[in-house]
Amino acid sequence: MTTLKPSSMPELLTARYRSLQPEGPVADNDFLRGLLAHRSVRNYLPRPVPDDVLRAAIAAAQSASSSSNLQVWSVIAVTDPARKASLAVLAGNQRHILEAPLFLAWVIDLSRLQRQGLAQGEQTAGLDYLESFVVGAVDATLAAQNAAVAFESFGLGLVYIGGMRNHPEKVAEELGLPASSMVLFGMCVGYPDAGNLPAIKPRLPQSVVLHHERYDAVAEAEGIAAYDREIVSYLGERGSVGKPWSETAVERVHGPESLSGRDRLREALSNLGFGLK
Amino acid sequence: MTTLKPSSMPELLTARYRSLQPEGPVADNDFLRGLLAHRSVRNYLPRPVPDDVLRAAIAAAQSASSSSNLQVWSVIAVTDPARKASLAVLAGNQRHILEAPLFLAWVIDLSRLQRQGLAQGEQTAGLDYLESFVVGAVDATLAAQNAAVAFESFGLGLVYIGGMRNHPEKVAEELGLPASSMVLFGMCVGYPDAGNLPAIKPRLPQSVVLHHERYDAVAEAEGIAAYDREIVSYLGERGSVGKPWSETAVERVHGPESLSGRDRLREALSNLGFGLK
Repeated sequence: MTTLKPSSMPELLTARYRSLQPEGPVADNDFLRGLLAHRSVRNYLPRPVPDDVLRAAIAAAQSASSSSNLQVWSVIAVTDPARKASLAVLAGNQRHILEAPLFLAWVIDLSRLQRQGLAQGEQTAGLDYLESFVVGAVDATLAAQNAAVAFESFGLGLVYIGGMRNHPEKVAEELGLPASSMVLFGMCVGYPDAGNLPAIKPRLPQSVVLHHERYDAVAEAEGIAAYDREIVSYLGERGSVGKPWSETAVERVHGPESLSGRDRLREALSNLGFGLK
Repeated sequence: MTTLKPSSMPELLTARYRSLQPEGPVADNDFLRGLLAHRSVRNYLPRPVPDDVLRAAIAAAQSASSSSNLQVWSVIAVTDPARKASLAVLAGNQRHILEAPLFLAWVIDLSRLQRQGLAQGEQTAGLDYLESFVVGAVDATLAAQNAAVAFESFGLGLVYIGGMRNHPEKVAEELGLPASSMVLFGMCVGYPDAGNLPAIKPRLPQSVVLHHERYDAVAEAEGIAAYDREIVSYLGERGSVGKPWSETAVERVHGPESLSGRDRLREALSNLGFGLK
């Protein structure tokens, strides 16, 4: 982590949880400080991502677990400015897609096993079930997160791009995807502009997300109220209007109109050849 | 990585790719070697997972990216032997669930935002769309993989348990899940039995999963044929009948009967309150 220097654990825990820190000691090592220092980076230096770092990140991605070793994912490395510009527009005009020296499109790829089945003269009807889509989503995401950790360990920064799901068919066309594959999300990668680094985003207290033995929402309301106060302060410190997290989050899922076009994801997946039975 | 000692990069790359290594140098550092050394661990010492390590892993999980900071996931830490035994049966008799000192159930949790909407008198109809399920799956998986990396950095081992989707409703009942939440996968965690460590699993060559600029399957058949040969050797060296990967993988998706009951995942999710529109 050369550019995104990990700070001390107390500093990192304060950035991540502010006053709502875990009750009790937190184990510490270099890896953990690297993971805790993550922030989404949207401003990059023009310096390209070295090929040996890309190979390392893909090796890390492939070292993540894969359900039954099916490896039902692919990744497309995009550096062509015209193609990045098209993808930036499709994602809702996110200029950092164009500005990042490297854009990775992480693909749920059921097409590879389909081709193998065809070559063997065997059925692959199991791919037409929602389960296979879920396996693809999990495998692709495990891989991507390992790549993210690898990139950050070499001093690079990144941001995930869910906006690839705003227009899945057009994204698939731009990238030449075969049927039964889709871009689950993108990832902008580059060396961070150190003068323009975002702060670490505070998260919900552990008491809200971590349950013991059985699901238990008893402490939730109190935990979220406290988090709302912290988010309002955090935003206020950065000159933004401080709106509680719970309000922003509920607005984001208000209805189909708040999903940036992704309310038609199921139809799009069907057009791309996913059965989702 | 105290117990799962990372070896040198050449050793790790040979374990991961055998003769099918990336063409060109691969960047190297401690983090990367840690990521590359991953294997699924199913044999544990009885030693419990320390609380400070669990807190660290959850802090790592929460430090992963979250779509629009919605944080639509939860995790349930199970140590009760009776509950682990029930979950082991539901997953298709996987004894390592019982034997692991800690079992984590990673949950797609749309219920939290539903409760917030209810408290505010606001609609949360956006949660009824497939997109929200996908956001939950991605968020939960990013979080879990960061936790996995954190655990391994403290010398623990783990294995993901997709078998939690064999009987989603019964798993939800066992863990007291509210409507609009489901266990996406489990994770067994413990200190590895060093005398019983599995080998690193070889993966497809990078040429098969990594595409440049656009999807390109031209080199795929050759890459998979070479991988099939390597997998046959790898299994043979371990005294198993060496079957090519492409055959095993295609069998796994042959049809609904090959999905271990998960062909009814969509019905199960509907029963658990997911709209998936």
